[in-house]
Amino acid sequence: MTEQQETTLGLQDNTEVLHRISRRLADRYAGTFAAETVERYVFESYAALARTAKISAYLPATTEHFASDRLAALAKSKGSIVSELPEVLFVCVQNAGRSQMAAALLNVEAKGRIRVRSAGSMPAAELDPAVLTVMSEMGLDLGKDYPKPLTDDVVRASDVVITMGCGDSCPIYPGKRYEDWDLSDPAGQPLDTVRAIRDEIHHRIKTLVASLTKEAAH
Amino acid sequence: MTEQQETTLGLQDNTEVLHRISRRLADRYAGTFAAETVERYVFESYAALARTAKISAYLPATTEHFASDRLAALAKSKGSIVSELPEVLFVCVQNAGRSQMAAALLNVEAKGRIRVRSAGSMPAAELDPAVLTVMSEMGLDLGKDYPKPLTDDVVRASDVVITMGCGDSCPIYPGKRYEDWDLSDPAGQPLDTVRAIRDEIHHRIKTLVASLTKEAAH
Repeated sequence: MTEQQETTLGLQDNTEVLHRISRRLADRYAGTFAAETVERYVFESYAALARTAKISAYLPATTEHFASDRLAALAKSKGSIVSELPEVLFVCVQNAGRSQMAAALLNVEAKGRIRVRSAGSMPAAELDPAVLTVMSEMGLDLGKDYPKPLTDDVVRASDVVITMGCGDSCPIYPGKRYEDWDLSDPAGQPLDTVRAIRDEIHHRIKTLVASLTKEAAH
Repeated sequence: MTEQQETTLGLQDNTEVLHRISRRLADRYAGTFAAETVERYVFESYAALARTAKISAYLPATTEHFASDRLAALAKSKGSIVSELPEVLFVCVQNAGRSQMAAALLNVEAKGRIRVRSAGSMPAAELDPAVLTVMSEMGLDLGKDYPKPLTDDVVRASDVVITMGCGDSCPIYPGKRYEDWDLSDPAGQPLDTVRAIRDEIHHRIKTLVASLTKEAAH
């Protein structure tokens, strides 16, 4: 093929901004990851989010956040970053409701003593609006959160993996604590039902924090 | 956290077989990719397929195939592999119907003169059974094919990217030919409709082959 024809479909070429993000993250992780590895993470994170994201204007910002968090997870699992904080990962199907509520509530209850992540096996385009509502009733703003696909790096970095209705979609590694929480799916439910799911999650989160901070105090 | 508790959920720990696959592919790509890079590709490919796959028994085999193909794509886009063959990527939503039929038909019509891939923005658990049926009526067995998520590496390696009903989910790079094919979705349709979609795709594929092999002959 000697000649290539570029047809624009009204979509945006984000190559330049992704290269800028790659340079920023390569600086941050200099000594831990080669620039080429960081660039791969940035571009693959972008492709993974672009598949399902609804509002493409936010994609570069969420890509930088997602790629940086994945690199931090990878650095921890490689031993390049030493952290005494237990790391917890919540996984549901869409990463739009249950796992997002659990992550937000654990962040509040853990008060900086636990590192928290969430992901989905089939991420939705955006967070469930009813979930945003019932969380904002508690004073928690999830407006900047976004559904993310489950990746190997965040599983590896986690000490505790809690699945919620996503079947066998999560890789299993030895030496981790796996729990499966049987919770109703808030998708399409009235606000009162979503509030009840939120409160059930909140109750479980308090028990989890007690068990993890007790373990950490050994 | 000084003590970790391993709870088995009846899921399989595939770590050992994934390490074996990583070693095989690291040998194959020695001199092109570091063993660590290959291992990341294998484990992330596994996590990506495990999210949506239905039959987990096939996962190690499909992981090896998928990771190897992604590494070949990456090597080509880096210039480590020089290929004169044009590369075509078909992208639909589920990678279970349209893009799979298009890839199979292009493989037949191109007779080795084009490298063909397909992917989905939200991959299904398995190929559409009606699609398997109408392709087998042409003597084409798609029984070993599997839905794959769209990744950056395969977009990068492609000269032509053809999207089918997947919106803005595909990264845009300069210097590639992008086409959007307006085709009905075969999901849930009766066999006669699926046959008509297959024949419409076949017609477009013949035109595509003519244009690409003409270009290649310049």
